Order: sequence, then C-alpha cells, then structure tokens
Amino acid sequence: MGHKFIGEIGPGETIDDIYLVKEPVLRPTSRGDLYIAMFLADKTGQMNGRMWQASEQIYRELPKPGFIHIQGRSEVYQNNLQIVVNNISIVDAGKVKIEDFLARTDKDVDKLFAEVKRIVATIKNKQLKTLVDEFLADEGLMKKFCSCPGGMSMHHDYIGGLLEHTWNMLRAASAILPLYPDVQADLVLAGIFIHDMGKTEELIYDTAFSYTDSGQLIGHITKSVLMLHKKAEVLAGKGVQIDGAILDAIGHIILSHHGEYEFGSPKLPATAEAFMVCYIDDLDAKMNQVTRLIEGETGDSNWTGWQKPLETKLYRKRIE
Amino acid sequence: MGHKFIGEIGPGETIDDIYLVKEPVLRPTSRGDLYIAMFLADKTGQMNGRMWQASEQIYRELPKPGFIHIQGRSEVYQNNLQIVVNNISIVDAGKVKIEDFLARTDKDVDKLFAEVKRIVATIKNKQLKTLVDEFLADEGLMKKFCSCPGGMSMHHDYIGGLLEHTWNMLRAASAILPLYPDVQADLVLAGIFIHDMGKTEELIYDTAFSYTDSGQLIGHITKSVLMLHKKAEVLAGKGVQIDGAILDAIGHIILSHHGEYEFGSPKLPATAEAFMVCYIDDLDAKMNQVTRLIEGETGDSNWTGWQKPLETKLYRKRIE
Amino acid sequence: MGHKFIGEIGPGETIDDIYLVKEPVLRPTSRGDLYIAMFLADKTGQMNGRMWQASEQIYRELPKPGFIHIQGRSEVYQNNLQIVVNNISIVDAGKVKIEDFLARTDKDVDKLFAEVKRIVATIKNKQLKTLVDEFLADEGLMKKFCSCPGGMSMHHDYIGGLLEHTWNMLRAASAILPLYPDVQADLVLAGIFIHDMGKTEELIYDTAFSYTDSGQLIGHITKSVLMLHKKAEVLAGKGVQIDGAILDAIGHIILSHHGEYEFGSPKLPATAEAFMVCYIDDLDAKMNQVTRLIEGETGDSNWTGWQKPLETKLYRKRIE
Amino acid sequence: MGHKFIGEIGPGETIDDIYLVKEPVLRPTSRGDLYIAMFLADKTGQMNGRMWQASEQIYRELPKPGFIHIQGRSEVYQNNLQIVVNNISIVDAGKVKIEDFLARTDKDVDKLFAEVKRIVATIKNKQLKTLVDEFLADEGLMKKFCSCPGGMSMHHDYIGGLLEHTWNMLRAASAILPLYPDVQADLVLAGIFIHDMGKTEELIYDTAFSYTDSGQLIGHITKSVLMLHKKAEVLAGKGVQIDGAILDAIGHIILSHHGEYEFGSPKLPATAEAFMVCYIDDLDAKMNQVTRLIEGETGDSNWTGWQKPLETKLYRKRIE
Amino acid sequence: MGHKFIGEIGPGETIDDIYLVKEPVLRPTSRGDLYIAMFLADKTGQMNGRMWQASEQIYRELPKPGFIHIQGRSEVYQNNLQIVVNNISIVDAGKVKIEDFLARTDKDVDKLFAEVKRIVATIKNKQLKTLVDEFLADEGLMKKFCSCPGGMSMHHDYIGGLLEHTWNMLRAASAILPLYPDVQADLVLAGIFIHDMGKTEELIYDTAFSYTDSGQLIGHITKSVLMLHKKAEVLAGKGVQIDGAILDAIGHIILSHHGEYEFGSPKLPATAEAFMVCYIDDLDAKMNQVTRLIEGETGDSNWTGWQKPLETKLYRKRIE
Amino acid sequence: MGHKFIGEIGPGETIDDIYLVKEPVLRPTSRGDLYIAMFLADKTGQMNGRMWQASEQIYRELPKPGFIHIQGRSEVYQNNLQIVVNNISIVDAGKVKIEDFLARTDKDVDKLFAEVKRIVATIKNKQLKTLVDEFLADEGLMKKFCSCPGGMSMHHDYIGGLLEHTWNMLRAASAILPLYPDVQADLVLAGIFIHDMGKTEELIYDTAFSYTDSGQLIGHITKSVLMLHKKAEVLAGKGVQIDGAILDAIGHIILSHHGEYEFGSPKLPATAEAFMVCYIDDLDAKMNQVTRLIEGETGDSNWTGWQKPLETKLYRKRIE
Repeated sequence: MGHKFIGEIGPGETIDDIYLVKEPVLRPTSRGDLYIAMFLADKTGQMNGRMWQASEQIYRELPKPGFIHIQGRSEVYQNNLQIVVNNISIVDAGKVKIEDFLARTDKDVDKLFAEVKRIVATIKNKQLKTLVDEFLADEGLMKKFCSCPGGMSMHHDYIGGLLEHTWNMLRAASAILPLYPDVQADLVLAGIFIHDMGKTEELIYDTAFSYTDSGQLIGHITKSVLMLHKKAEVLAGKGVQIDGAILDAIGHIILSHHGEYEFGSPKLPATAEAFMVCYIDDLDAKMNQVTRLIEGETGDSNWTGWQKPLETKLYRKRIE
Repeated sequence: MGHKFIGEIGPGETIDDIYLVKEPVLRPTSRGDLYIAMFLADKTGQMNGRMWQASEQIYRELPKPGFIHIQGRSEVYQNNLQIVVNNISIVDAGKVKIEDFLARTDKDVDKLFAEVKRIVATIKNKQLKTLVDEFLADEGLMKKFCSCPGGMSMHHDYIGGLLEHTWNMLRAASAILPLYPDVQADLVLAGIFIHDMGKTEELIYDTAFSYTDSGQLIGHITKSVLMLHKKAEVLAGKGVQIDGAILDAIGHIILSHHGEYEFGSPKLPATAEAFMVCYIDDLDAKMNQVTRLIEGETGDSNWTGWQKPLETKLYRKRIE
Repeated sequence: MGHKFIGEIGPGETIDDIYLVKEPVLRPTSRGDLYIAMFLADKTGQMNGRMWQASEQIYRELPKPGFIHIQGRSEVYQNNLQIVVNNISIVDAGKVKIEDFLARTDKDVDKLFAEVKRIVATIKNKQLKTLVDEFLADEGLMKKFCSCPGGMSMHHDYIGGLLEHTWNMLRAASAILPLYPDVQADLVLAGIFIHDMGKTEELIYDTAFSYTDSGQLIGHITKSVLMLHKKAEVLAGKGVQIDGAILDAIGHIILSHHGEYEFGSPKLPATAEAFMVCYIDDLDAKMNQVTRLIEGETGDSNWTGWQKPLETKLYRKRIE
Repeated sequence: MGHKFIGEIGPGETIDDIYLVKEPVLRPTSRGDLYIAMFLADKTGQMNGRMWQASEQIYRELPKPGFIHIQGRSEVYQNNLQIVVNNISIVDAGKVKIEDFLARTDKDVDKLFAEVKRIVATIKNKQLKTLVDEFLADEGLMKKFCSCPGGMSMHHDYIGGLLEHTWNMLRAASAILPLYPDVQADLVLAGIFIHDMGKTEELIYDTAFSYTDSGQLIGHITKSVLMLHKKAEVLAGKGVQIDGAILDAIGHIILSHHGEYEFGSPKLPATAEAFMVCYIDDLDAKMNQVTRLIEGETGDSNWTGWQKPLETKLYRKRIE
Repeated sequence: MGHKFIGEIGPGETIDDIYLVKEPVLRPTSRGDLYIAMFLADKTGQMNGRMWQASEQIYRELPKPGFIHIQGRSEVYQNNLQIVVNNISIVDAGKVKIEDFLARTDKDVDKLFAEVKRIVATIKNKQLKTLVDEFLADEGLMKKFCSCPGGMSMHHDYIGGLLEHTWNMLRAASAILPLYPDVQADLVLAGIFIHDMGKTEELIYDTAFSYTDSGQLIGHITKSVLMLHKKAEVLAGKGVQIDGAILDAIGHIILSHHGEYEFGSPKLPATAEAFMVCYIDDLDAKMNQVTRLIEGETGDSNWTGWQKPLETKLYRKRIE
Repeated sequence: MGHKFIGEIGPGETIDDIYLVKEPVLRPTSRGDLYIAMFLADKTGQMNGRMWQASEQIYRELPKPGFIHIQGRSEVYQNNLQIVVNNISIVDAGKVKIEDFLARTDKDVDKLFAEVKRIVATIKNKQLKTLVDEFLADEGLMKKFCSCPGGMSMHHDYIGGLLEHTWNMLRAASAILPLYPDVQADLVLAGIFIHDMGKTEELIYDTAFSYTDSGQLIGHITKSVLMLHKKAEVLAGKGVQIDGAILDAIGHIILSHHGEYEFGSPKLPATAEAFMVCYIDDLDAKMNQVTRLIEGETGDSNWTGWQKPLETKLYRKRIE
C-alpha cells in the first residue's frame, strides 16, 4: 500500500505512515504537561502535528529534521487540519522511499542523461572533449549530477532538476547554434555542461533541499570553476595537458553566466559564447519558472499572485 | 567605374565623385576670406573637407545633409587626410546609388522576407493569421519593413537590419519552441513579426540613419502597438473582428519586449510568450552586436576597446 | 432605513442587510459538516463572516465577488468581531446603492466636470480644441471619466477620483501657467485632460476596485495614447484632419507623464509642456495621498505609520 | 563707449578693453622665449589669449582669475579666433562694470524683491513672521540674496538668479495653495523664502561663479539650516523665543527640499508642506532650465543637443 | 528581592512586580464586558497581558507607554504565555530601577568616558582642543552622551551605546593613525568625538528607545553640526574665536560620515580625515552588529536567520 | 650617468637614452614620405615622438610596446614638447634598469616582506599556519608577490604595491584586532595575506602595467581562490590535509572582500572576519588613493580636480 500523501489527508482520518518531521519544539501546556509541536511533511506539502503526552526524552531523540513513523489521527483545529500524534518511531533515512518526500522531475533521467552525452559527444575540439569526458567518467559526480536539484526555489527546484536544466539548455543551444556560425559551438556546449556542476556541492537534497555550509560560503559559481581546474589537474597527472586558454574560456563562461554582478557573477560576459550561455540559461530558467507558476496556481483567476522576483503577476489565460 | 570609397582614399589622390555632405559650416580665414568646412561621407566612413574659396551663396545652397558631387584632391593635414574641394554641384538623392552611402545587410533580402512569410504562415490561430496577413498585404509597409535598419547604433544598424533581425528571431523561435510545449507558439511568432514594426516610423534612412521627430517623441514600442490597433480597425472596417484578448496578448508582447522599465518598456513580461520574445530579441541583438564588434576591431590585440553599454572589453581570440 | 455600515457594527447585533461578499471558501468542520468562510464588506471596511450550516449548492451560487443580503448576528471570536450568517440571498448589483460600497469623492461631480469643461474651453489651438471636444462629445466615455477612480491605492482611489485629480491638475495649471509664458498653455491643458483617460479602461469599479485584464497587460498610459489616436481617426472619418505633430505632442505628454522609466513611462519628458504636466500630476497625487494618510491615521501619535512608497513616516502635528 | 564683448569680436580687430583673465600659464616657445597663454572672458564667452614677449614677473602679477586691461589684436589661428596681447595692466575689480562679466537676470531686481516681501508679509503665524522679518532686516544678507546666482550651471545660473527663483516659487505657491486647504500656507511661504538662503555662503560670484571652500565642504542645505538657527538665537538674545517645533518644521522643509537622498537631502519629505516646497522648487528649476536650453540652442534643428542630466534631447518646435 | 524578568516567567506563576505597559487597548468581550489587552515588557522581552474586568477609567489612567505595578498570574493561552492581570497601579518612572527595563552596555561607563577624555586630550591643535573641551565642560550634555544608545536597532542599541561606540572608534583611530602619517590626527579624533553627538537629541531612552519628533524631522547628522556651531558661538561669546576653516573641516567629517547619500549623508567624504572617520565608524558599527547577531542567535544552527540589512545570513561556526 | 627622465626634458635638448616606445604608427606625410609617430615613456610620464625619415622595415621591427634607444632632439610643436627621433635601436628588456620605467614603492621591499612574515608568524591555528607557510615557501610566487603592483590605477599602482598594501593591512589588523576579541585573528591575518595573491597572475608589469588575458577573463578574486586550493592539494600530496572548513573560511574572505556584488565579489561578507578584512582593505586602498591624489595635484588650488570614482573633488588644505 502506498504512502498517504499530506495533500490527500481529509479530516477524521487514521494516520499510520512515515513523514518528514521538521522544526519540532517542546512546550508546556496550560496544565503544566509537556507536548511537542512539529511539522509533518512530504513532497505534497506539510501539516501541523501535535503530540500531547510528550516527554523530554522523546523530544531529544527526534531527528531535526528526519523521518518518523507516526500513528495518530487528523482533526480540524481552528479551521485548519492537524495531526494528533499518539506514537512516534524513528525511521532510518535509507529505508524511506525518498521520492515520496522530495519533488522530482517527471522526465526519464536515464534518457535525459543519454541525450546530454549524445549532444556533448558532438564537441570536436580535442581538449574540450577530453575535459568533458573526464567529468563523464566520474561516476560519483555524474550520479549527483543526475539527482541534484537545479535550485532551491526559483526554477527546476526538484530532484533531477540540474540534469533537466542542463539537458534542455544543451538542446536549445544545439537548435540555435547553426543560426550564429561565428559562435564557437564547442565552447558553448562544454560551457553549458559544466556551468552549474558546482551545485552538486552547493546543495543538500537527501531529506529536504538546503544549502551546504560550503555552498553558502563559496557558491556554485566558484565551485564549478574549482571543479574544472581539479579535473584539469587530474588529467595533468595522467600526462594530458589542458591549455590555460581553454580553461580560461570555459572558466569565463561559468563565472559570467549569471550575466550581472548583482546576480553573483564576478565577471560580465566578454565573449560571444559567454553571452549565448548566459541567455540560454536565463531563458530556460524563466520558462521553467513561469510555466510552473502558471500551472501551479490554484483557483480560476486569470492571474497568479504577485511574483516578487518577476515584479509582476502572471497572466494565465490562453488564447482561443 | 565604381564609387571611390572614403575608406580607400590615400594621400595625394584626385577626387571626382559623389559624397554625402554633413554639418557644413561657413567660416572666415585669417585673411578675412570665407571657407566651408564639412564632413564628406559614405558608408565606409567620413573625412574632413575644406573648400577654401567659398561664398555665402554656395553655403546656402548646400544640402544639410545631402549629396554633392565634388572635384578636389586629398592631402595630409596635421597627420590626418582631408579633401580640398575645388568644385561642388548638388546631386539629387534619387540619382544616387544609395547603397554606396548606407551600410546594408549582406544577406539576400528577398530570400529573408520569403522565409519570414514561410514561418509566420505556420500560425494556426485564425485571428492571428488574419492580423499578420493584413500586415503582409500592406505593400508600402512591407517595403519599409524590408529596408529599415534594426537600430541606430547598437545592433543590426544597417539597411535591411530590421528584416534580418526579425527573420533570425523567427528562426530561433521556430528552433526552440518545440522544447517548450506550454508556450503558445502562434503568439510568439506573431509577436516577433510585429514587435519592432514601429521602427519603420521611428527611423529615417534615406541618406543617413536618424530618428524622426515622431520617433523620438513617441518611440517604436508605442508606434508598433498603434500600428497593431490600426490594422485591427481596418479589418473591423471590412467586417473582420479581432478579439480584444488577441490584441492585448500581442500588445503586451510588444510593450514588454525590452524586458525592463529602464530600457523603455512600460510593462514587464507577464506571460510565458512575452518572456520568450524578450529573451530571443535580446539574444539575437547581442549576438549581432558582439560578433560585429569583435570582427570590426582593427589591429591584432586579443581584446576590443571598452564597450560602454556592455561594461567590458570583448575577447577576440578563438580557441585552437 | 439606511445601510448598517461594517465600521459601525458592534458585538451582539442582529444583522439584516446587503454586503459585498468576497473570497468565499467552503470548508469542512471538525465534525465533517461544511461551512462557508467569507469576507463581508462595504466602503467602511470588511469583517469575517461564517455560515455554519452550508452546502455545496449555496457555495456554488455565491457571487465571487458580488452582493448578498444576509441575516445573522455579530459576535466576538478570538477578540475580533465576526458575523454568523444564518441566511443568504443573492442581490442583483443593479438594485444596490453602490455608494454604500465604494468610496466616493466628497466633491460635487457635476460641478467638477463643469469646471473641467470651462477650463479646457480656454484652449485656443483649433485642432486641440477639436480633439478635446471629440472626447467631451463621447457621452459614454465622459460618464466613465466622471466615475472612474484615480487609482487602485496610492491617490484618488475612490469613485470620481479620476475626475477630481484631472480637475485639480487643470486648476493648478491655470494658476501657474501665467508664470511661465514660454510654455504652450494649450498643450498643457489638453495634455492634462487626456493624460489618464486610459484609466477608464484599465480599472473596474462596479463592485470593488480592480484592474481589468486588458489594463494589467497594456496599462493606462498606452491606452490613453490609443484613445487619442482613435479619436483622431474618428475625426478623420468626418473629414477633420489632426496633424501628426499635434498627436505627437499630446502623445509625448501622455507617455512621459510618470517622469521616470521606473514608473512605467516609456519616454522621458522632452518638452517644457511634458515637464509641467509631469510635475503637476505628481504634486497633485502626492498632496492627495499625503493629506489623506495624515487625516486617516487613527490614534493621537504625532506620526503616521511607516509609508513604504514614501520611505518615511508622516508628521501629523500642525504648528500653532 | 561700451565694452567690446567677446561674442562680438571678429578677426583682425584692434582690442583695447578690460577682460577677465582665467587660467594663465607661462610656457617656453620653441626658441626658448617665454609666453603666456590665457583665457580672456566676459559674460558672452571666452577666447584664447597669447602674450608672446612675456616674463615671469608679468605672469606672477596676473590675477588668477581677475580683471586686466589689455591692448592687442584679434587673429585667426588654426581656424579659431585668438587675441594676441601686447600690453597688460591689472584692473581693480571695484572699478569694473561687473555686469559686463557676469550673466544677470533680465528682470527688475527691486520689483522682484518688493514682491517677495509682499508675499511673505501674508504669513499670519507670529513666530514665522518674526523669523522672516529677522532675515529681511539683515541688510547685508538681503543684498547678497538679491545678487546671488541660483546655482552654478543647472538653472538660474546668473546674478539675481536666487532671488528670481525664490520669487517665482513664492508666486507659484501663492497660486496653488488655495487648491490645497489642508496645507499650512505659512510654513510653505516661510520655507520657500529660506530654503536656498545658504547659497549666499556657498557661492562666490564676484568675478566668476564658483563654490566657496566652505560651500563645497558643507553645502547650501546645511548652511541654510545653520542660518535659520542663528537668526533664532539672535532673536533669543533679544528675548524673542522661537519654538523648537517651528524651527524643526522649517528645518525639515529645508533639509528635504531636494526630494531624494541622491540629490543631497539628508531627510525625505515627511510633511505635506515639505512635499509642496520640494515640488515647486523642482518645477521652477526645470522650467527655467528647459526653456533656456530650448531658447539657447543655436541652429534650426528641431532638437537641442543631448542633455545629460535630463537623459534626453529637448524638442524645440512649437505647434501651429 | 529582584525584579522578575519577562524572560524568566514560566506558566502558572504568581506575578507581583513592575513592568512597562505598551499599546494598551480597550475592547468588548463577547458578553459585552470590557477588557484591556496590553503588552507587558522589560529589557528581556515582552508578553501579552489581559485585564478582564476593566473599565474606561482604568484604561484612561494607564500611561501609554509607562510603568505599572501589576498583580496577576501567568497562564498558557493558545500555546503562548500571557499574564492575567487582576490589579494595576501606576508607578512613577523616577522610582523605577530603569536598568531592568532598558538594555545597557556591559562595560564600565566611567572607565570608558575617562579613556575618551584621555584620548581626545592628545589633540594638539589649540582650537580643536578648545572646542572639544567646551563639549566636555557641558555636564548636562556629557551625562546624556554617557547614557544615550548608539542607535535604535542596528548597532550599539543599548544605554551607553553611544559612548561605547565613540570610545571604541577613538581607540581604533589611535591604533591606526600612526600607519597613515599624512592624515591629520587631530581632526580625526575631534571628528569622532563629535560625529554622533546629535544622537543625544535624536533619541529618547527614558522608558524605551524611540526617536524624538525633532530627531525624526532633522536627524542626528544635522543636529551634530548645529551643536558644533552652537559651541563655537558660546566660545565666541567668551571671546574665543574658532576659525571657519576648523568648523568646516569638522562639519564636513560629521556630514559625510555615513559615506553615501543613500545613508543620509548630504556630502560625500572629500578629505582623508573624513574617509578615515567614515570607515572606522562603519567598521565599529558592523563589528558590534555582526558579533551580537552571531551571539544572540538561539539554537545550534551554523547560521543565523536572514539579516535583511546585510543581505545575507551570518555563519556562526568557529574554526578549531 | 643616469637616465634622462621624460619629466625633466626641456625644449631644445639633445636626447640619447632608452625609453619605452608605445603605440607606434606608420603614416604618410603630405609629400608621400613615411614617418613614425609614437609615445616615448618612462615612469615620469610620456611624450610624443616623431621619426620623419622612417621605413616599413623600421616600423615592423619596433617592439609594440618595448624598449628602444633613441638619438634625437626635443622641440616645441604646437605648444607641446615632442622628441624628433633620428636614430632607433632595439634594446633587450633584460638590459634595462626597469625601475626607471615603472613606478615603484618608495618603501624597502625586504623590510616590508620581513614584517609580513613576522605578522603572519603569529597565526596559532596549525592548519592556517601550514597553508600560509606553503605560500611563503613558494619562492617564485613570493618574488612576484613582492614586485606585483596593487592595481592598475586606483591605489598602490606601482611595483611593490601589492606587498605594501598587504603589509599595511596586516599592520592595521594587528592594531585593531585586540579591540574585537570575538573576531578570529588567525582567519583575518591569513585571509589578508592571501586575499589579493591572484593579482600576481592577473597583472603584467614587466614593461608597463596591464592585465593578462587570463586576468581579464577570470579576475584576481577567483584566481586567489584557485591558488588557495592548489596549495591545499600540494599539501594533500605531501600527506597534510587542510580541512574543508578552513578552506571555506579563507575562500569566503577572499570572495567577499570587495564587499558588494557591484565591485565583483560573488559573495557578500557573512562572517565577522570577512567584514573586517573587507573594511581594512577598503580603508587602506582609499587612504593610499586619497593621500596620493592630494599630493599629486599640481598647482595651488585648495581642491584637486573631480575624482570620478569618488564622486567629489578632494580638499587639499590642511588646518593650522
């Protein structure tokens, strides 16, 4: 029997399932007893949980956050549903069907990755090909590359999002590169493949999405450049030298791909290839963000709510 | 025998040809005589001209600017070449081979326009198709559309530039629309076709490129929307009604296609289609601008000069 | 007997009156029954309403938003007043005394409109006079012009606000134009009269104030220019030609009257007349906004709360 | 016989007149002799001057800047007029007809000042009236107030400009205050009268317009507030107490009258009166600046040159 | 027996102590009775208070804000602690141990002030020394200087904060001035001593921290300059003249010490001394703000919450 | 005999010395002959040079830029000194006394470097000490560190400037760290030592100051982080592991030390240590820039010219 999703729970139901517990707090009731307030979550949302007959020991053992198996019952309190929890047992994260808890691309990851490999295989420059192959040969990294989200909240913020974003950018680049014959296609394709690789070290996405300490202090842009140079040094260790000019051209694409200082790029695009990667990145990110905001809006208004980062509402009504 | 281009004149040459005269001024010499200082120009550049034995009458008759046939000689003065003009006769603009004077797309305008028509013919929505066809049926407008520059200086600033820019945007849109199935392709294609149509009223490009008064006061964005509504009213006069929702969707794409208030858009993109047109417009403009700046740089430095609107120099060296 | 205003309801009162219902939602109680939560509003404010014994059918029939006649009782719940609704019947908007529901200028609309006509009658330029008269002759439009609010929230946000704002701007212009004899008074007066006319299409104000879809996509600035050109075409149809230079001069005033790109003007003021209209508009808007914020503040603090768009609190204490 | 204005000198004229000498430098000729290069100026412009047989002593005695009587001759050198100076004698500034050298309002200063006094005499609040009268009674200050320019370059940059600007603002305020009955007219009028008074200490305008050291370090805004408090202390010394609330209300108008931090106001307007003074100040400044730029443009183009502070060209063509 | 701090109250305790009452409101219960809702506060935080059997008279007599002695009991209501108040008596502010209510520097104020005096005593310039001594001799002002907070919220926002900030800036200046021998140390030290003196008039801190009306209208920067000039005039009254150049140099340091127009400085730093004071001010403020935010964060996360003015979270984990 | 400095050449002198030739161009004279125009430079400035009887071969052999020995004579042409060059011979850069051509710190580099080593030797954390020692042990890098300029133009733009700037920052940090005991001194000192190390790869300064291609594409901030990681990997190769947390803490200081995105920092300071390094860096840079601008200004005006990056003139007059 499948997981009972938070988004499907109605009032008065018996609950006996695994949820992600978040931000538990221990509080005294007005009678002096102790209870635990917490959020219970999965990928469909979260709900208030209350365990009334709690103890300091139960509270201390709770993962913060982490997975617990609860038994209890849903009820309406002050017009909101909450879960009254009677029993709690800790669940090992390894035994959880993680896809119930983390949003995930609806696309076939294997197919996407195969197509990514197919497109970067068209790179003709030997050094760039060698560099890209060195990334592809790093199985641990590629596993992360295929599962890492594309971001925390703005776009592709789901398991597999980094891959999906990179895949779609590569497809878009393949489609429009023939229109701009002066642009060096090899640099664009290799640059896209590596540009967000540092997100695999910037983000954690085992139980929920968050930043690593290192990710917050350093950021994925610098991390991607560091990974590029590390791969080049590994190759150098094998006697394969990558020219500094190649590393600088790809490094520049990575550093400038946010397009403005304000968005965390320490360099502005200074090559045609850097401009192209920057625009394709922004286009693909915005298309993902905008179409999902439009689809995700509930209700039948013609407009979504105000979207602060876009400084506008979005219009949802289609023609015809 | 062809035109002697400004860019090809060396010192000590006899000159007997037609040039565009610009900013002529009448001045006294130290001996009290009058002379005319002017610029003589064609599409390859401009040079100082001096007519030493001038009179108020000659000065008054000069077009400002316009075409003149001059006889004279090139000489070096203070390390710069200038033309000493002995004789001037006014030339009717109609008798001038205008392509010697105005930079022009190196592409085949007829082919480009045919391809534009082929792409917009894929629009399925009847009202949008009708609207686009009404524009296409306006021969006078289409003639301007095929010759108008795409801008004054930043990108596609040559005869046929508007067509080339629109054509390339339509090609790019056709290439990437399949990647974004939620985006309404008909709106994107019609929006691209019409988005800069107002430039035909904003710019003059008969002898040199400049803004019309109306263009400076109103701008091509508002003018494009006015043209859209005028076409709809003409259709209404024929009994063909275009829904307000269609006009608003296209109007919104036009108004928001500069992407930021700071760039003259009175509305920010609020539909997926408006975002896509905005990005394709910016990408195509920047690719044109950047590749031409890189190619146009003389000398063998790896870098172009400082590009103020891009806040950077551009790197010219290719890999390999 | 008059309407019982929301702002006058105390605890424990019997309610039997018409209110605007907004954002009704159907929810289950903890016992599994259904109830409707809603806002009940008039021009003095809004209050929570609860109908406990509700059904899907009642919910479906509710206007969202719209007018309903309710029977019920006010009570205090968690320190706030709410209305417990026992009975609901839908009310046709046409039968409602709309001024109970929408804030309205406290000035005499007929007098204001008469004074507007009197001031624009001083325009001497024939074409401008003809244009203005064409607007004045459009009875449907003038009716909207006299009732439309001046905005959604910042200033003159009440029925008749557009007229009051235009009227006061015309009065201010008449007062200061003599101080600036180089400024073309006809353009200033005609420009003020038309500058916000597009708000009649941008805003809905039948039951509450909101934007039309078209208003949000296109904006009142562009709409005002479109209306200007439409009137010119109607006149052309009657054989009366308005010069392009006149339309551009007024069009430029309209387009630039917000004064900065950031505020949605696609053109910056480039004529003395455009600057003057821009300043008078801003002055009159701010005076309305500031004096109403100062008056509207409850309590006896010397300062209003923080006014985000003004980046300051406002000081309320008067001298003497 | 009147002064020979720089703007009227043609080639080959004998010069025997007083000019303002600016930025003189002593340089060696190629033969090793010394010459002085300098600018010779009056209110109509400036011209290069050269004294070929110069000495260190002559150079040292030259005022930098200051007035000199020169004898010499105009000639054309490299297409520009210059004056070859044969003889120089220093002229005492007190003996110079200063109006030949400094641009000056074309209005009647006495009339303007009388009207200023007439308008501020309408102030009813006793303390404000006392304060204003204390300023008016300061003859030295009022003399400066009547001669000081309104600024260095942007608007009213001529002798009497501060008075003209203050006078016109007072007239504009008188004209529109009746439209805004909630605004405290006394504060507005007194605030306008004092708002730029510090310019009398910020600017020097004896021989040319420049900033005082103190003006550059402190600025006229702070200086106006210091003058306000100094007058209040002088009154206190006479036993007349001005309330702190009065000083704060006027002080706030002065501090905030530039309207934005970016323009040097350390406080943003927080009272209706401060907003009104700020708008009237900006309106009057812009009207002066714009109409003078339009009139001052030579040539018959419909547009002035690019106006950097306004981010636009200005359109000069009038309707009709 | 000491004060029972808000931060130490648990559920079910009997309360009989003095608290600061803030924002009391009188409301009807659902039964029609009246009750008073209020906040009860001291320097450790605030809690909701409810007096159920209230009357209009009790409400009217309450200070708003001010000190009251209450008798009552703490209880949990909707998961939050609140105090049910049975009895209220007004307490005179003079009889309150104010340090229980206002946060206060943990440093020894006398020692700090002694060290301040010791450092400014190193000033060698006679006029600057005289000026500083005139401030030091003003006992009333120095008492305020030693107790005034350094700000409302950002840094040094506690009693004695202004002194602590000034003291630490003087120490930092003393430490680094030897590294910059071209910088005039006397100006830096005197400038630091006076730069925020106006805060003593900008802030009230008798019962809670808030701005004075005058402080909000004028600001501490301008007030500091006014105080500087007032001291100079007092000295002038005693026959001791301070040069305008000295007042301008110090005045400029005060006016520019926020470093940017956006932060309320009407002048940008234009002397080495002004730059140095500006940097030391910002450094000391940020060190105070950042280290206190890091220490003050509860919980064991490696990061503080989002700090809006710093546009980042702060990292709390130390190395080792 | 010493070098004849450009700044010391007067008119009519015989020149027989080595200069840096910059931007040579070959041009035809009006008689059809060829001449070479060039700049001749050393650290005191540059002067126009003309070789009249030139040939394509001479031109081709010229270094662009590089050192040449010239024979010729100085003369005044159009009021400027220029050098007429009769003979040119190429000079090997290795044989040139480079300090005649590049501005250089006036401090003792060995002493400065010794003091740098002395200060970083106070670092107690073992890993940080190991890291810093690894940098110090890299003789090639340290040689560059001691000679590299601190920048291209803004501050410390001379040979040894990077060392002088780092040295002075370390001294300032040592002086103020005792005032902020919560700040981790080891991180501050190590962070300062490494923060600009990437400038050794960003800048070329063999004959003149310029950016490397790699420097322009990647920037010194990212390069410093890459060098940090490279040193850590070298240590790892020796079996000495540096914790990721240490690398992140130093990496964060480097990335954020420009303090704002706009200045090229991809991360804003998020630790007390990063804030301190950022402020000390800015303070030391500004003190160097401001005091040198004030000293470098010629003439006796109280003000320097307008300093665009500082948005002000600088006041040069000292008190007393």
